Amino acid sequence: MTLDSKPRVVIVGAGFGGLNAARALAREPVRVTVIDRKNHHTFQPLLYQVATAGLSPGEIAAPIRSILSGYKNVEVLLANVTGFDLERRFVETAEAEIPYDYLVVAAGASHAYFGHDEWEPLAPGLKTIEDALEIRRRVLLAFELAERQLATGEPGPPLNFVVVGAGATGVELAGTLAEISRHALAHDFRAIDPARTHILLLEGGPRVLPAYPEDLSLSAQKQLQGLGVEVHTSTMVTKVEPGAVHFRGPAVQREDSAASKEPASKENDTRLEAAVVLWAAGVAASPLGKKLGVPVDRAGRVPVQSDLSLAGHPEVFVIGDLAAVKDKHGNMLPGVAPVAMQQGRFVARLIGREIKSRGERSAFRYWDKGSLATIGRAAGVAQFGKIHISGFVAWLAWLFIHILFLIGFRNRLLVFIQWAWSYVTYERGARLITGSNYLPGWTADSPRASPAESSDVQEAHASRK
Amino acid sequence: MTLDSKPRVVIVGAGFGGLNAARALAREPVRVTVIDRKNHHTFQPLLYQVATAGLSPGEIAAPIRSILSGYKNVEVLLANVTGFDLERRFVETAEAEIPYDYLVVAAGASHAYFGHDEWEPLAPGLKTIEDALEIRRRVLLAFELAERQLATGEPGPPLNFVVVGAGATGVELAGTLAEISRHALAHDFRAIDPARTHILLLEGGPRVLPAYPEDLSLSAQKQLQGLGVEVHTSTMVTKVEPGAVHFRGPAVQREDSAASKEPASKENDTRLEAAVVLWAAGVAASPLGKKLGVPVDRAGRVPVQSDLSLAGHPEVFVIGDLAAVKDKHGNMLPGVAPVAMQQGRFVARLIGREIKSRGERSAFRYWDKGSLATIGRAAGVAQFGKIHISGFVAWLAWLFIHILFLIGFRNRLLVFIQWAWSYVTYERGARLITGSNYLPGWTADSPRASPAESSDVQEAHASRK
Repeated sequence: MTLDSKPRVVIVGAGFGGLNAARALAREPVRVTVIDRKNHHTFQPLLYQVATAGLSPGEIAAPIRSILSGYKNVEVLLANVTGFDLERRFVETAEAEIPYDYLVVAAGASHAYFGHDEWEPLAPGLKTIEDALEIRRRVLLAFELAERQLATGEPGPPLNFVVVGAGATGVELAGTLAEISRHALAHDFRAIDPARTHILLLEGGPRVLPAYPEDLSLSAQKQLQGLGVEVHTSTMVTKVEPGAVHFRGPAVQREDSAASKEPASKENDTRLEAAVVLWAAGVAASPLGKKLGVPVDRAGRVPVQSDLSLAGHPEVFVIGDLAAVKDKHGNMLPGVAPVAMQQGRFVARLIGREIKSRGERSAFRYWDKGSLATIGRAAGVAQFGKIHISGFVAWLAWLFIHILFLIGFRNRLLVFIQWAWSYVTYERGARLITGSNYLPGWTADSPRASPAESSDVQEAHASRK
Repeated sequence: MTLDSKPRVVIVGAGFGGLNAARALAREPVRVTVIDRKNHHTFQPLLYQVATAGLSPGEIAAPIRSILSGYKNVEVLLANVTGFDLERRFVETAEAEIPYDYLVVAAGASHAYFGHDEWEPLAPGLKTIEDALEIRRRVLLAFELAERQLATGEPGPPLNFVVVGAGATGVELAGTLAEISRHALAHDFRAIDPARTHILLLEGGPRVLPAYPEDLSLSAQKQLQGLGVEVHTSTMVTKVEPGAVHFRGPAVQREDSAASKEPASKENDTRLEAAVVLWAAGVAASPLGKKLGVPVDRAGRVPVQSDLSLAGHPEVFVIGDLAAVKDKHGNMLPGVAPVAMQQGRFVARLIGREIKSRGERSAFRYWDKGSLATIGRAAGVAQFGKIHISGFVAWLAWLFIHILFLIGFRNRLLVFIQWAWSYVTYERGARLITGSNYLPGWTADSPRASPAESSDVQEAHASRK
């Protein structure tokens, strides 16, 4: 199969790291194969917008094939990578073995439930388009069911939305949920009292956005509270069950708190009925990391050399969320897009130079251009070196940078129109509930479809023309 | 619950019929409840665009709540209607009974497999957003798998797409599939030879678009063939099996036909390997029709009085695809949007007049403004009374009318931008494969996920960051 004399580079994963490696390698005298088990690249920083019905999946995702169609030496394969044969230099998939001369593993990360994988169906995380659609379905269904219960005379439980974890994703989700429950949905759901809707953000550490400087964490917390989000820091989730979440933390004192209204159960845990629980707390690297033959760290990340290669295998590189890389101060690099993108380009340049036999390998250095998190409509925090920004200006910077980086001009234009429209009208454009009408844990006692029925498609009954 | 003194009108189904009834009733002194088991209205005439990756679900569907949010006397309930108590005047749902003074049943229709319901998973139809996403998944996956097989050295079977039924939906699907396999996808899939891709349109009757005049049927067939579609009329599908379809019809003579290359099996059936089989042949009215206590016709439609009411129940109306209504010539009215819309408005006016005690009930008369079908990029047929139009002008008329009628300004603008973009670039914007990578019946012998794994979401393995 390697009749072609050019060295073959196989890239596993078409996230930010894999795509940037592929693009940079398009200029080098190599043959590149990008393997992913999805046909699309997902712009993960905007996934929360799909989850909260602001954008459609097609607006933040694009087929990998069409992103890379301009590069003649790059081919794309849809396949599940099952392992690696590092000695013979093959990537193993269910259907075939793909040989390589250089291998770049950029398989990314998924959620971690800290040993409680049974919580996953009850508290979904947000990593893929499917995750985002599932969260959208649950959020919209919770409003629909509350409206139905009120309309048919049964008062439902208070409408609590709980977000676990106050990193960037958790903060974005909580802020946006607060907004839509106040504005977009309040207008359409007439029986629901917005005062009975609570958004809770639970964070195990002492402050929100732990990766940001303290002043920005404080500012973010104030902006969240201004939007109506109840923020509980130093609070650990101890149990997730259908329709409720248990947590332990400092005493809740505010009178309007949803949490304080619940009686404390044994062991001083607070039990809170929750229409929807979302998980934004832990990150676990792809299980493919374990197949590379070196011990991985607690989060499943693969330790790499300073040139991002695997110890003993200079032809194998690990980049992005899957790689455990420290900066010059000894701090672990965060699992964010800019790190993966810079690593992808670094590895591509390194391979290109090595093929042309130009000198020694250098060490990867991350250039931190700053961090941005958005909180809701016209709110956010940003850090560019020593410059800390909060509020509207931070949000504008965030908007500008994210639209700029969205892959593909077409998506950029559509996203901008969508946002302009929803900013002016407070309307959420993508509010479709697809899949089943079953909401796990909402009312376990009422007759409803089983969770195994994942789709209405098989049902013969059609109530619409 | 009926403390409100205004008469309560319950509408089951928020398709074209139900929505138009609700809007017209918003002006009358009544209280209206619209019940649907989906939260969104689907603009069904454009579903084939979602199935062929031209539009995103959010662009052709809108939440029923937001469509009706401007009407103060209209409420919306998300619920599964399970039956009717016509004597006590209640609509039954799993959660509650909804009382009514007037009932409008507009529950629509689904697919019919002519006694072969086991074909449904092998040959999906196109009635809901979920159907369209499933078809999109299969079509795109078929190309991905063919590319993978060629890239890894195994020559796959010829890439045959079979559309069963040449009504408007079948013609639209076949024409658009021919286009995308020639243009949009041919560019991105390098290993696949477009000459090995065949689109077959099988029709049981003697001509395509049987509801249209003969000259337009002939023109449509020529336009389809011009796009590369193989049209087989007077051809009956006798069996659908995983990865193949059997059919019986006149001898196939053309040399370049995909069908002629296959050896005929016993009983003179032709067996054709098919990557994807789509069903656009039969229509079965909603099973809710049978719950109305009168004998339904062969297609499950409910016979109604000339005022669209149920015999013996002047307070119950059946409209849209669920109603069997004949025109003055004794021909059954077709299951198209204009019929349902006119019926919805007719019933609303009738109820309004009756409440104000103004005169006798009149009979429903359908005003046929014409018929339009599109075939592909810049092709189509149209009939306005005695005026028959073909080709580009028919397509323009179709485009104009469909964009005009798309519900909601925002969708209209986005759909127009999408179309303008894809017309100029031949690009399909919504080419995401979501859900599982399993394609039923493609290669039964290769190890693959079971069909029960309906989603990748549960898999721990994440190959992308």
